[in-house]
Amino acid sequence: MDLSVAPSTTAASDIVRGEDALAALTALVRDDLEACNRLIVERMQSPVALIPQLAAHIVAAGGKRLRPLLTLAAAKLAGYRDGQRHVALAACVEFIHTATLLHDDVVDESALRRGQASANALFGNKPSVLVGDFLFARAFQVMVEDGSLEVLRILSEASATIAEGEVLQLITQNDTATTEEQYLAVIEGKTAALFAAATEVGAIVAACTPAQQQGLRAYGHNLGVAFQLIDDALDYSARQEALGKTVGDDFREGKITLPVLLAFQRGDEAERVFWRRTLEEREQADEDLGRAIALMEKHAAFADTVGRARDYGNAALEALAVFPDGVERRALAGIVEFCISRAR
Amino acid sequence: MDLSVAPSTTAASDIVRGEDALAALTALVRDDLEACNRLIVERMQSPVALIPQLAAHIVAAGGKRLRPLLTLAAAKLAGYRDGQRHVALAACVEFIHTATLLHDDVVDESALRRGQASANALFGNKPSVLVGDFLFARAFQVMVEDGSLEVLRILSEASATIAEGEVLQLITQNDTATTEEQYLAVIEGKTAALFAAATEVGAIVAACTPAQQQGLRAYGHNLGVAFQLIDDALDYSARQEALGKTVGDDFREGKITLPVLLAFQRGDEAERVFWRRTLEEREQADEDLGRAIALMEKHAAFADTVGRARDYGNAALEALAVFPDGVERRALAGIVEFCISRAR
Repeated sequence: MDLSVAPSTTAASDIVRGEDALAALTALVRDDLEACNRLIVERMQSPVALIPQLAAHIVAAGGKRLRPLLTLAAAKLAGYRDGQRHVALAACVEFIHTATLLHDDVVDESALRRGQASANALFGNKPSVLVGDFLFARAFQVMVEDGSLEVLRILSEASATIAEGEVLQLITQNDTATTEEQYLAVIEGKTAALFAAATEVGAIVAACTPAQQQGLRAYGHNLGVAFQLIDDALDYSARQEALGKTVGDDFREGKITLPVLLAFQRGDEAERVFWRRTLEEREQADEDLGRAIALMEKHAAFADTVGRARDYGNAALEALAVFPDGVERRALAGIVEFCISRAR
Repeated sequence: MDLSVAPSTTAASDIVRGEDALAALTALVRDDLEACNRLIVERMQSPVALIPQLAAHIVAAGGKRLRPLLTLAAAKLAGYRDGQRHVALAACVEFIHTATLLHDDVVDESALRRGQASANALFGNKPSVLVGDFLFARAFQVMVEDGSLEVLRILSEASATIAEGEVLQLITQNDTATTEEQYLAVIEGKTAALFAAATEVGAIVAACTPAQQQGLRAYGHNLGVAFQLIDDALDYSARQEALGKTVGDDFREGKITLPVLLAFQRGDEAERVFWRRTLEEREQADEDLGRAIALMEKHAAFADTVGRARDYGNAALEALAVFPDGVERRALAGIVEFCISRAR
């Protein structure tokens, strides 16, 4: 598959290669990211030692800090120059993200997270639930110290939307009658809501124009949808193993993602019997994952999922057009390519 | 056991009988409580229907709404007369409480809650975790609408402290070396923190004096400790069944509560072998709960736990002395008696 980003209304000079793009963004806000990492470690402390122990396991497990990077870079793009508010809010975004990861792994009964034993596998489900609660509460404490009700509004709304997306995912799991609309609502909730909030709070601290704030929010939202679409394609791709994840997790759990939906819609009756047996009744034999992947390839389900991600990626690029060209805009534009090129 | 409240520095006229006291407080703020109940139902709605379904199960399961009652009455006592902020904040307090109940039941693997099937038993652990997250986020959304950073500070701090208390409880579970100090830290976290926040936010909306705000917070804190001490005694009492709970849950889970701590400290070596086998190794036979109760009675562990609760209850009454006598102060003073007399 050729997954390069299609030309968009944003200048071609905005577009760089995927891994380079993440490195470029990280380099651009390196000092801020280091300050954010220090703050994360500082603020996850507690007299109850198990809390920082468990939190450190997941916080230190090699995440790329994509969401806090977005907050830091969005603040810079929107003109924030003096002060450390963006650092504190980037840490809040990462705390909320970490809390949802801990709860997700409990809900999904995951054994692996970022290629390592997940917190629930290592420490048990119980502390994972409670430390997630702690990090969530701590995020709100840090926001209160920042003192912006607008930030609190954005991140409390995002948190509620994430939970709604996760519950909807649970409901649609093992249900091949799930519609594309429902699938989109799931990923807009569980992923795009926090991406959108991460970039919007960057705009808030910079006190930019309403159009720029809206632009950064739209960028984050569309990037988040693209990111999750690629994640869902990757779950059926050998490339996944290189990212330290297990191939076929979604298949084994019967999650109804876009590649599945497309293959199901385009399949004949015999194929639908296969999908119902494996995903709804969860009767799976060793060879079934291979057959699922073959059916997805036959029906161009991967290519079309990536194409859909590219559409959202282009919308993210267009949303940046409200800002003048410059190193920050180019860095954020490059992240679109990073998210989509993970699928290669 | 005679568990009536001992005379305190607060006037004897402040003291009424337990059940009557709850009825008196409920009657005092009846309209506000009804408004709060309506707001709870209104704000737990979501396009994802499973969320209000599951939330309604626990919200409608016959809780006495003790914490929101405390917020409503505290606001009245502190002089709040016009406006509905106390109603909104009482709903926030109940949302946070409900979220912790949902997560507790998952952590404790409880099958019953308030005499009915618990949400996790009925809907499964996964939606219980996620709907807890939703209610927690929704509580913060409602607080943001209220607009007080001071309220957000108090309730985000309480939420972090609750999680710390719950994690500490998990660590001390099945460990007979737990100290009284650790036990107190557990119940101050898991119970008293939200009681204290519930009454303090009532003071905040009333804009009373700092001494009165501090008094209401101290009242809530001490009441919360007393409430939990009695709860922990009740877990070994036949009276528990009348309250719709199962006797001996704490024993079966190996929770180290004050009645256990006192009996263990005062027991001989043979008795300690019994406690270690049943609580640490969790090897329990049918007759062991009966023996545990007999040992607690032998060592006056119940009476002393209730006595300790009475001390905290008296501290709660004393904290109210910063307010003049009146119907609200008497109603809140009566709640001390209500909490302690549950043990009869």
